[in-house]
Amino acid sequence: MRAAIAIDVESGTPIHRQIYEAWRRGILSGRFRKGDRVPSSRELALALRVSRSTVTQAYEQLFAEGYLETEQGSGTFVSGELQQHALQPATNAKTKATVRSVHLSKFGTGLVRDFIYPPQPADHICFSRWSPDIERFPLGTWRKLLARHMRTPNRKLLDYAREAQGYEPLRREIAGYVARSRAVECTPEQVLILNGSQQALELCARVLCDPGDTIGFENPGYLGTRRIFDAHGVKLAPASVDAQGIVVGEIAPQARAVYVTPSHQFPTGVSMSLARRLELIAWARTQRTVIIEDDYDSEYRYSGPPLPSLQGLAGDVPVVYCGTFSKVMFPGLRIGYAILPEALVAPFRRAKWICDRSTPALDQAALADFIADGHLERHIRRMRRLYGQRRAALIDALRQHFGERIEVIGEAAGMHVAVRTSETQLGERAQERKVQIVSTRDYYFGKPRRDEYILGFSGLSERSIREGVKRLAGVA
Amino acid sequence: MRAAIAIDVESGTPIHRQIYEAWRRGILSGRFRKGDRVPSSRELALALRVSRSTVTQAYEQLFAEGYLETEQGSGTFVSGELQQHALQPATNAKTKATVRSVHLSKFGTGLVRDFIYPPQPADHICFSRWSPDIERFPLGTWRKLLARHMRTPNRKLLDYAREAQGYEPLRREIAGYVARSRAVECTPEQVLILNGSQQALELCARVLCDPGDTIGFENPGYLGTRRIFDAHGVKLAPASVDAQGIVVGEIAPQARAVYVTPSHQFPTGVSMSLARRLELIAWARTQRTVIIEDDYDSEYRYSGPPLPSLQGLAGDVPVVYCGTFSKVMFPGLRIGYAILPEALVAPFRRAKWICDRSTPALDQAALADFIADGHLERHIRRMRRLYGQRRAALIDALRQHFGERIEVIGEAAGMHVAVRTSETQLGERAQERKVQIVSTRDYYFGKPRRDEYILGFSGLSERSIREGVKRLAGVA
Repeated sequence: MRAAIAIDVESGTPIHRQIYEAWRRGILSGRFRKGDRVPSSRELALALRVSRSTVTQAYEQLFAEGYLETEQGSGTFVSGELQQHALQPATNAKTKATVRSVHLSKFGTGLVRDFIYPPQPADHICFSRWSPDIERFPLGTWRKLLARHMRTPNRKLLDYAREAQGYEPLRREIAGYVARSRAVECTPEQVLILNGSQQALELCARVLCDPGDTIGFENPGYLGTRRIFDAHGVKLAPASVDAQGIVVGEIAPQARAVYVTPSHQFPTGVSMSLARRLELIAWARTQRTVIIEDDYDSEYRYSGPPLPSLQGLAGDVPVVYCGTFSKVMFPGLRIGYAILPEALVAPFRRAKWICDRSTPALDQAALADFIADGHLERHIRRMRRLYGQRRAALIDALRQHFGERIEVIGEAAGMHVAVRTSETQLGERAQERKVQIVSTRDYYFGKPRRDEYILGFSGLSERSIREGVKRLAGVA
Repeated sequence: MRAAIAIDVESGTPIHRQIYEAWRRGILSGRFRKGDRVPSSRELALALRVSRSTVTQAYEQLFAEGYLETEQGSGTFVSGELQQHALQPATNAKTKATVRSVHLSKFGTGLVRDFIYPPQPADHICFSRWSPDIERFPLGTWRKLLARHMRTPNRKLLDYAREAQGYEPLRREIAGYVARSRAVECTPEQVLILNGSQQALELCARVLCDPGDTIGFENPGYLGTRRIFDAHGVKLAPASVDAQGIVVGEIAPQARAVYVTPSHQFPTGVSMSLARRLELIAWARTQRTVIIEDDYDSEYRYSGPPLPSLQGLAGDVPVVYCGTFSKVMFPGLRIGYAILPEALVAPFRRAKWICDRSTPALDQAALADFIADGHLERHIRRMRRLYGQRRAALIDALRQHFGERIEVIGEAAGMHVAVRTSETQLGERAQERKVQIVSTRDYYFGKPRRDEYILGFSGLSERSIREGVKRLAGVA
């Protein structure tokens, strides 16, 4: 008897698996049809010259999965349960590419392109990042704190979180930290632990706004947040930023919420003045608008103490205060938080549960210790000193090589410097000279400025910074 | 001169801070008005009997923040920049409770209540959980793998992820794992790393459905998923589950997608038969419907090999295959994945970026090693044996103490057993007898069955299981 199927003894795949696959594919493709008799295990073993137990192993799986059935006394058959019309050619990974196009939601359709970081060639000096210098993060301390929770584990940390709001000791530490450093007024019950400020802002979009609603937005403003509201179908109503911050008179009166970066406006680097803060709060009170305070870069201020947060000044005006550990620890940690007015705690917590239930608890426990043991504030102090020196080197080099042709705008704060220049095509020339700087062009709604750039300094050594500015000026 | 402000030398708060706070609150509350002259630092130091440098420190902060200003030669004043109408009584955390109610989106309003796990008193035997036995997880191995990546760190793991899709070596390991264990056919490019299957299902709701769209849903079906689609405003169209799985003829023809748990239907424990799988796929092909395959509990099957996944059988029919490490490792890890048809990879990846950018990379790197080094499959084998014994003990005890009065339904799989009973009020009596079992009532659309319960066994010792069943039968 000729075997209905072929096997390859040289192939790496076990013989019983090959037999199983051959019948399975044969049945699914319609080559073998329901009711077809299949050889007995003895017959097939003879035909293929393999042991009977090998065939039996394959057949058992085919029986178990419902491909074959036996009829008492008359043999083995392709199962009559399988509806012939349901069978179609089986495919492999390659033909998967032909999956027909799928209907997407408005949200799914609106996600137009990936957020791509520009390539950073090794021989370029890149002022195009404003990320923390992760080489300086005390990773050994972090490892020990994590290990502590895994060595004598609180098994609750490994289980589903009882609730989505976050690990209580961490919420307590964060409430203390933002009170000390940012004059935020809150209880631990108002703190919601999230995956970075990205998730905090995404929840703001979803919980506060319906598609078609309007949000007040700084112009120029942070693209990352803009994409979140865009994706959600929220209309962005731009309001200019002047030397004191967002121009309150320009905020759309119908805005559900207004998004601001008061500590160090992105990209201009402006700190919102106290007068402007109070004006914004008074306006929000009248308009019944929520303030979304993205307190980005608040930790790094190099001259004088930072202004207290809007949240701490706002009284009865609802402020969602968003913070993150990405900039003061490392971005891959993915832990941030929102400080919520009490009326918003439950809806935000429930939304977090819907989205992904909770943020990983072991990391939360280690972070609670990292703050409680003073490591966080110590690390921030150290980095403030380091970044302050790097910023000073950048400003100094710019003065030396460009003089009046480059004006630094914004506060002595954060991880980047915003500049305006009288040089035309500084950006294009930078590229030729193997330096990367970023135009603020993409951050504007409507007509952008052509003379404005941002230079990130936090990840570069003073030496690289000086060398980069020299190259930029064409003197290196 | 009488000092305009009072300080308390006994309080723990530094004097300069008290001075700062007193002026700040006085100005914000309107007690001191713009243009008011404030005493010089010398005058105030004398009045308060503190050192002049203490007052200077407070004043410097008040100048820096814009509360005070000096006029050359004439003294120090409350800043004229502050618009009086903007000033309102400052509040403290307590009065925050009075924040007025805030407008919420439809999504925000629809989030009706928290998902609360029932309390589990220590003296009860709780068949009300079907979670992994986390005591058995090799946490030491996990700790070492994590530490390895922190000791000689790939600094990329600490930075922002270049893209949202997930750590490439982990995607490769997952593609291999689901091919071996579930006959899923995919490349690593089709794998998207997410925060548990919760996020995978949430993205399905958002990317595939607009509010008002319909989704086919098993009846009874998993509440966790139901809440996700409910929150998103998607209509759930129930289709019954019989002994072979979802009844295909009952699925709403207009459904954008159909959600199924084919390995071990929740709550009934039914495994979808091969014939039913093929019928569902054929139906989805005709209707142009996406299948959402929540392959929950697929790893734990105690008799015969598991049926291959729908994804591997589906050919050109789009299947979103959702998996998680919550059940095979520990839930607090918060890592799951979706295997996507190629047409859906970009929209889902972009949606993940919008939601929270990426899943923590250090955990992803440790997990890639955990799979590559064989720890995952070894742990699953061990747990399968353990849970198999626990399930057998449960079935045995039920037979012994209830005989015909309890019928076990569903497959020998997963972490819970579904039963039907001729005893009335078994649930109520269980509670009295300090045993927790869960009625399937809440999982039904429309009229629920009153005789159906689920008993989770995976987290209980055989001894507790036997004791629990004895109590339930009233013989202990």
